[in-house]
Amino acid sequence: MRLTILGCYAATPRTLTNPTSQVLEIKNHMFLIDCGEGAQVQLRKHKIKFSRINHIFISHLHGDHFFGLPGLISTFRLLGREKEMHIYGPKGIKEAITLLLKLGDSWTNYPLRFHELTSKDSEVIFEDEKVLVETVPLDHRIYTNGFLFREKLGERKLNVDAVAKYKIDKAYFQNIKNGKDVVLDTGEVISNAKLTFDPPKPKSYAFCSDTAYKPGIVPQIKYVSVLYHEATFLESEVHLSAKTKHATAKEAATIASAAEVETLMLGHYSTRYKSIELFKEEASVIFPNTLLAEDGKSFEF
Amino acid sequence: MRLTILGCYAATPRTLTNPTSQVLEIKNHMFLIDCGEGAQVQLRKHKIKFSRINHIFISHLHGDHFFGLPGLISTFRLLGREKEMHIYGPKGIKEAITLLLKLGDSWTNYPLRFHELTSKDSEVIFEDEKVLVETVPLDHRIYTNGFLFREKLGERKLNVDAVAKYKIDKAYFQNIKNGKDVVLDTGEVISNAKLTFDPPKPKSYAFCSDTAYKPGIVPQIKYVSVLYHEATFLESEVHLSAKTKHATAKEAATIASAAEVETLMLGHYSTRYKSIELFKEEASVIFPNTLLAEDGKSFEF
Repeated sequence: MRLTILGCYAATPRTLTNPTSQVLEIKNHMFLIDCGEGAQVQLRKHKIKFSRINHIFISHLHGDHFFGLPGLISTFRLLGREKEMHIYGPKGIKEAITLLLKLGDSWTNYPLRFHELTSKDSEVIFEDEKVLVETVPLDHRIYTNGFLFREKLGERKLNVDAVAKYKIDKAYFQNIKNGKDVVLDTGEVISNAKLTFDPPKPKSYAFCSDTAYKPGIVPQIKYVSVLYHEATFLESEVHLSAKTKHATAKEAATIASAAEVETLMLGHYSTRYKSIELFKEEASVIFPNTLLAEDGKSFEF
Repeated sequence: MRLTILGCYAATPRTLTNPTSQVLEIKNHMFLIDCGEGAQVQLRKHKIKFSRINHIFISHLHGDHFFGLPGLISTFRLLGREKEMHIYGPKGIKEAITLLLKLGDSWTNYPLRFHELTSKDSEVIFEDEKVLVETVPLDHRIYTNGFLFREKLGERKLNVDAVAKYKIDKAYFQNIKNGKDVVLDTGEVISNAKLTFDPPKPKSYAFCSDTAYKPGIVPQIKYVSVLYHEATFLESEVHLSAKTKHATAKEAATIASAAEVETLMLGHYSTRYKSIELFKEEASVIFPNTLLAEDGKSFEF
């Protein structure tokens, strides 16, 4: 699982800081999460292949999370894209994009599939054999979802020495990987546990931005590998976080701690602070394994 | 008159090239012309005061000329703007911006005044004591206007030595600047020509992008100080320019020559070419006084 931060600052794009957008590579998927203005330039800068992106998840319709989407859709067209593109986001996103394309008489020559979200409860919005994506309803000034990306439990790993020892024909291997026992010609039953190892623990990534402190999300994101939680403010500005429905670094850490996640990553920093290290300092007191998102940085998990 | 190029490339924003946007300073106005994605970051990079921009002119509703506008409008709000903002552009621009603000529940706390354009004939869209702006209808795939910015003829300049010689009281100075003669106490009439110099020749700037080769604009832009004319292609790709309703460098130079402008500036370059010098080479054969727009460059005229 690889996460590339295209932008992780709040409010407005600046010369050296970009609004929210990130790319999650998980099990051969390349998911784009939010798309603030300038995201397409960041994609180019970090040499991410546009053609590998087939799913875009938009948390909410504030400009710093989606004003880069119309331009990205247009660029896909200019690059000659033919594959369909799936866009998941709040109701209204289809109307907005469609209007902009109509005004420019610039319809895409690839299919745009909108999956508009309205539910206040979590729902599964994408699923294939290897990955599942569900919404994490958040608490912000407008309708907002986080997204929880989960790898599914993979096949059991074949114990090569064991199958050799019992001289098991490879025709049985797929059944064994699926968890089945094997009956030898002698009638002896070899339990699956002797023939396989546990599959790697599935990884999971919870993207939670923008949101006020919302302990209600803890059960859903319990034990995730990585929690990205917004931390627009420090506790010294907790009055602003309450007013604007954002969170502080301390609040993000409190969520991470309660959910017993493996790693917390902070982002969506207000540009009022001199150093983003201050966010890490504040959060680490409560949750030591805290990382800072930074524009252009990639993380392997 | 000072022109700052924020972006001058066609189609899509890239790491080092930006779509169309420019700032024209003329007689204390700071006009923003077009607003491709990333324009607000370019404004910051070139330290242009956001608060000085009160008028935005949008040529047409292709993304590379206006997808930076929603974000800029939002940023003005976040910066606490209170002054009204005037936006001139094709019909539909109000609906698009209004929908995006509505979806984000992010209404501006400053007045947005839309001046929607539909006329296929040139019309005056802004005028004050010193400056006049009129549309230049262009020929592109969708409804598109260029803009012609004209300084008005200023007051005549006082000949300080002459007024001293005739001992003319300063109470008469404004009348003299307005072109009046003076009658001395002796009854002698001093003609205005003896007391003043001609005012500086008014400057003018014609922004013509995007457009196919359109000789019909020549009478309107005759003798302008500076003509910015798009040159998306070289003549070697004239088949593409015809198909996409863009112009070549040669065609831009032909317009400049016919209109007897003082200076031609090229822009809106396709990124397919190795060097933009090729555009200058091609245009200079027909119109020697050709400049190349370049992102981040400022020109004084």
